[in-house]
Amino acid sequence: MDTNLATPKRRLAEKYPLLARYGNGEVARLELSALPALCREIRAFLIEHISKNGGHFASNLGVVELTVALHYCFSFDKDRLFFDVGHQCYPHKLLTGRMGQFATLRKGNGISGFPKPSESEYDAFIAGHASAALSVAVGSARAARLQGKLQHTVALIGDGSLTGGMAYEALNDAGGSGERLIVILNDNGMSIDKSVGGLAKKLTALRVKGTYRRAKVKYHNIMDSLPVLGPEINRVLTDVKNSLKHAILPGSFFESMGFTYIGPVDGHNIKELCTILEEAKAYDKPVLIHAITKKGKGYSYSETRPNEFHGVSSFHVASGVCQKSGDRSFTNAFGEAIVQLAEENPKIVAITAAMPEGTGLTRFKERFPNRYFDVGITEEHAVAMAAGLAKGGMRPVVAIYSTFLQRAYDQLLHDVGILGLPVTFCIDRAGFVGEDGETHQGLYDMAMLTAVPGMKVFAPSNEAELAFLLRKAVSIDGPVALRYPRGSLSAFSGNTAEQDAVRIYPKDDKAAGMPDVSLITYGRTVDAALLAAEKLQEAGVAVEVWKCNRLWPVPLEEMAGRLAEKVLVCEENIATGSLGMHISAALC
Amino acid sequence: MDTNLATPKRRLAEKYPLLARYGNGEVARLELSALPALCREIRAFLIEHISKNGGHFASNLGVVELTVALHYCFSFDKDRLFFDVGHQCYPHKLLTGRMGQFATLRKGNGISGFPKPSESEYDAFIAGHASAALSVAVGSARAARLQGKLQHTVALIGDGSLTGGMAYEALNDAGGSGERLIVILNDNGMSIDKSVGGLAKKLTALRVKGTYRRAKVKYHNIMDSLPVLGPEINRVLTDVKNSLKHAILPGSFFESMGFTYIGPVDGHNIKELCTILEEAKAYDKPVLIHAITKKGKGYSYSETRPNEFHGVSSFHVASGVCQKSGDRSFTNAFGEAIVQLAEENPKIVAITAAMPEGTGLTRFKERFPNRYFDVGITEEHAVAMAAGLAKGGMRPVVAIYSTFLQRAYDQLLHDVGILGLPVTFCIDRAGFVGEDGETHQGLYDMAMLTAVPGMKVFAPSNEAELAFLLRKAVSIDGPVALRYPRGSLSAFSGNTAEQDAVRIYPKDDKAAGMPDVSLITYGRTVDAALLAAEKLQEAGVAVEVWKCNRLWPVPLEEMAGRLAEKVLVCEENIATGSLGMHISAALC
Repeated sequence: MDTNLATPKRRLAEKYPLLARYGNGEVARLELSALPALCREIRAFLIEHISKNGGHFASNLGVVELTVALHYCFSFDKDRLFFDVGHQCYPHKLLTGRMGQFATLRKGNGISGFPKPSESEYDAFIAGHASAALSVAVGSARAARLQGKLQHTVALIGDGSLTGGMAYEALNDAGGSGERLIVILNDNGMSIDKSVGGLAKKLTALRVKGTYRRAKVKYHNIMDSLPVLGPEINRVLTDVKNSLKHAILPGSFFESMGFTYIGPVDGHNIKELCTILEEAKAYDKPVLIHAITKKGKGYSYSETRPNEFHGVSSFHVASGVCQKSGDRSFTNAFGEAIVQLAEENPKIVAITAAMPEGTGLTRFKERFPNRYFDVGITEEHAVAMAAGLAKGGMRPVVAIYSTFLQRAYDQLLHDVGILGLPVTFCIDRAGFVGEDGETHQGLYDMAMLTAVPGMKVFAPSNEAELAFLLRKAVSIDGPVALRYPRGSLSAFSGNTAEQDAVRIYPKDDKAAGMPDVSLITYGRTVDAALLAAEKLQEAGVAVEVWKCNRLWPVPLEEMAGRLAEKVLVCEENIATGSLGMHISAALC
Repeated sequence: MDTNLATPKRRLAEKYPLLARYGNGEVARLELSALPALCREIRAFLIEHISKNGGHFASNLGVVELTVALHYCFSFDKDRLFFDVGHQCYPHKLLTGRMGQFATLRKGNGISGFPKPSESEYDAFIAGHASAALSVAVGSARAARLQGKLQHTVALIGDGSLTGGMAYEALNDAGGSGERLIVILNDNGMSIDKSVGGLAKKLTALRVKGTYRRAKVKYHNIMDSLPVLGPEINRVLTDVKNSLKHAILPGSFFESMGFTYIGPVDGHNIKELCTILEEAKAYDKPVLIHAITKKGKGYSYSETRPNEFHGVSSFHVASGVCQKSGDRSFTNAFGEAIVQLAEENPKIVAITAAMPEGTGLTRFKERFPNRYFDVGITEEHAVAMAAGLAKGGMRPVVAIYSTFLQRAYDQLLHDVGILGLPVTFCIDRAGFVGEDGETHQGLYDMAMLTAVPGMKVFAPSNEAELAFLLRKAVSIDGPVALRYPRGSLSAFSGNTAEQDAVRIYPKDDKAAGMPDVSLITYGRTVDAALLAAEKLQEAGVAVEVWKCNRLWPVPLEEMAGRLAEKVLVCEENIATGSLGMHISAALC
C-alpha cells in the first residue's frame, strides 16, 4: 500500500464524520433515520475522489442507498455479499474500512477497483467478469448449508449482467433446488450502454408500471372489485386471482424459475429497502428483489450522461467536463477502419457484447444501424451468432476485449473453428491492461486462438497497419483475429503489415554480419524492442529485431535459417500459446 | 464413404417403400394422411439399424413426427433447420437422402452421427455441443434478412439444452430484436438424465396441464363465465383478461423475452404439428412452439428406460437387452474412487453438468444425494458454482468431459484460477473419442489447463493410479485436474503415480547406456509406447520410455539432464498447451 497516497484520518473525520465513525463495518449501529446523511457523505466522497483520480463513477453513485441498506440489514463479516462485475463496490469499500486508502484506488500497490478477498474479509469473492456472481453465490450458500453455518447469502447483479446466460443458469439452478439466496437486481436499464434484449424491454415495462407498493394496491383493488357469485364462479375466480397475482405483481420470468419475486422497489428509498431486505431475510428459499435505481444518481451530469460517466479518468465537478485522453487509440483506429470497409462491402456486419464505445463501434452503430448488433453481455451467443451470420454469407466482425473473449472459447472451437467460418475477431485490450487489474488482463487470447482450427492471428503496430490488416482479415475465407492493446497507438512509424515477418533492425541488411541475438516482437512492444536493440548495439552486442505481423501460424518460413543462435521473444502473454513458445518449440 | 457397408437399394425399397421414394427431401409430396405410415417406417428403420450398429436411439425415436412434420411444412434446401446437440438428427438424415449410407453411421469414413454441412445441403450447421443452435439460427435469420433471402429459420432444441445459458442469451436477443425465427422446444423432460432446474419444473407443470387446445378451451370458458357488470368492472376485467391470457395460456417465461408462445402441443400428433407449423410460418417475429414428446417413443423398452437407451452400442430388439461393454473404464474407476473418498471426507461434493452416468457419478448420487449437484447443461455455472463451494470451505469435484469443459474456460481462469481455489476437475473423454467425431474430441483441455494460474494436471494410466491421484488431488490446496480417456482402462500393470515422472523402460536403469531416443508419454498411450520401445530396441535403436503422471507443471526436474538427444512425446492433444510443446520449449 502506498502510504503517501493515504488521506490523513483527521481531515476525513472532519469532512465525512459518519463514514469515519461507522465506515468500519458498523453501519448497523446507526439509527435508520441517520442513513440518508451517510448516503450523502458517500456521494460527496465519491464525487470528490473520483473526479480527481478517476475510476468507475456512475455505477457507484447508483448503488449508494442499496449498499447502505445492505450493510444496515446484514453482517457481511459472516453473511456473504457477492458483487457482479464488481465496479459498483466503492460504497462497500468505504463502509468496510477502506476510506483512508481510497486515494490509492486502481493504482500500483493500491486498493483494487474490484472486490478482492485478500484486501478485506468483507469481500466475499473477486469480481470483474459479468454474470458470474449468482453462480458463486449459489455455491457459497450450499457450502454454508452443508456445514451448518448460519449465513445469509446476497448477490447484487445489474440488469445488464442479467443478459448473460450464466446468470440465468444460476437462477435456474437455485430456483430448482430451492437454495436459500437473496438476489438483488439493480435495475437501471443500463449495462455500460443501454441494456438490450427482450427481457430488458420487459423490465422497462415493469419500471414504468410503478413500484411494488403501488402494484400491491392495484392488485388488491382489483381483487376487491371482483364480485362473488356462487361456488362455480368462485372457483373460477380463485383461478383468476392466482393467475392474476403474478401477472400484475410482475416477475413471472423469475417465478418461472422458482424464485420469489419482490418488487419493483425504489432503490433510492432507504427505508423501503430496509423493510424489504428484512422481509427477504425471513424467507427460507430463493428470493429476488427488483430494485429500480438511477445510474449516476445524485450528480446531475452523470444522471443525464451515465454512459460517459461510467468510467472516467477525471472530471471537473462544477462543469461536468470529463478529461479525455487526446491520444489516438487502437480502438479509435479500428472504429474508423471498419466504417470505411463497411462502406465498400455490404456484407460486413459488426457485433458487440454490450460495449459499443469500449470497442470503437459507436460510429459504425450510427452509420449502419441495420448491420450493427449489440447482443448484450453474451460473448458466447455473440460468437456463435457470428458463426450463423458467416454461414449465411455475411462477413461478421466481432469487436471484443481479449479477457471477455475467454467466455467464448468453446464457440471459437466448436461453432467457428470446425467449419472454418470467415468470422473476424477484433480483439482489443490484448496484453497488459493496467489499472483494471488481474481480472481484465489480456494475456490468454493467444492460448485460445492458437488452439482454433484454421485460425489466423495478426497484430498491428499502428493505425495504418490496423487498417491494412483489417482489410486483409475480412478478405480471408476463414477465421481471423486481430489483436491490439489498450491505449495509445504505438509510435512505430513504418508500415510492414504486408509482410508476415520482417527484419526491421539493423536497417542495412547487408552491412551487418550474423548477429548475437535475434529479438522477435510485435504490436506495441516494437518500439521498446528497437530502443533495446540500439542500447545493446552500443554495448557491443550485435542484435537484430524481427517484427511479426502475423503471429499464427507462426511465420517461420520468413525467419527460418536467418535467426541468431540466441532468440529472444518479447510479448505480453502467458507462456501457453505465446509466439515465444511456438517459436521455441519449432526451433527445438 | 465405405461403399461395402451401404445397404442395397432394392432391399431398402422393399422394406421401407415410403422412405425409399420420398426420403430424398420430398416428404412434402406425400399426402398428409400418409405421414403416419412414413413415421412407422422411420421407427422400424431406426430400431432395425441402431439395435445392430449402435448410436443415439431414444432421442431419435422421440422426434420422428416432429421431423416428418418439419419436412412436410418447410423446404430445408432453402429454409434452414438447426439442430441443437444434434444427436436427434437421424430421422432428418433418413429424409434427406442418407438412408442408403445409414449402416456406415458413426464409423470411420461413414456418415456422421451429427448434422454435417459437408455431408448434405440439408444440414444447415454442425452440432454437438448443447444450447448453441439458437444463436446460430439467430445469425442465419439475420443473414437471410440482410440479403433479402426468403428463408424460414427453424431451430429444434430440447428442454435439457434449454438449461444452458447460451440458449437464453439467444432467446433474449431474438426476442428483443424481433428476429423472425421459429424455435421448437422438444420437451421430453429429459436431457440425458432427467432435466433439472426451476424452469424444468415449470415445464413439467405445463405438460401436466394439457395441450394447447385444452388450455385454449379452458381460457375461453373462464372468459365467458366472467360476468359483465358496468363500465368500471369491465375495464378491470379487460385488465384481468389480458393478464390472464398469458397466465393460463402458459409460456410467460418465453413471452417475457419477446417470443410468441404456442403450446403445449402433442409432439406425436402429426396433424396438429403441421397445423401449428403452418401457423408459425405466418408470423413475422420470433415464435416458440412447445412440443411435448416422449423420449424413446414407439419402442416399449426405450419408452420405459430412455436413459439407458440414450446412446447404445447394440441391443436385442425382442428382449430390450442392451449389450454392455464388460470392460472396466476410467469412468467406473472414478465413480468408485470418489465414493470411497467422500466416505472419508465430508467436505467432498460432486458436480455434474447433466451427465451423472457418463461421468460415473451414479453411485455417488445415490450414496450422497445431499452432496451431489446436477446443475443442468451449464458448464459455466458448474465451474463457478464449484468455486463458490470451494471458497466456502468445501472440496468440490467437477466431473466433466474434456470437450464440454471448453464452455467454462473463462470460469477456470477467472473464478477458480485467480483465487487459486481447491476445485478438482475430473476430466473424462480426454484424448481421441472415436465415433462421436470432431465436435467431441478431447484435445483442447491441455491448452486450457496450462493457462490457468496455479493449475496442476495429472494423468492416471489405470485404476489404481486414478484412485491414488484423485486422493492426492483433493488434498492439494489449489486447482487440480485429472485427465483420462474414454473407454477401457489401460493395461499398464504398474503403479508409478507417486512419482511425477519416472523412467519405466528399460527396467534395469544401470545396464543401459545413454539411449538414442527418449520417448515420453502418459495415460493410456503408455502401453503403446512400451510396445514401440521394444520393437525399436529389437531394431537396434536404444530407447528409453518416460511415464509422466504429472503433466503440468511439467516435471522437468525429474527428467532434466537425463534425456537423450532425441526426445519424442507421444500424446493425444493439439500442439498448443501439449506436454510435447511445453517440453520442447523448456529444452530449447
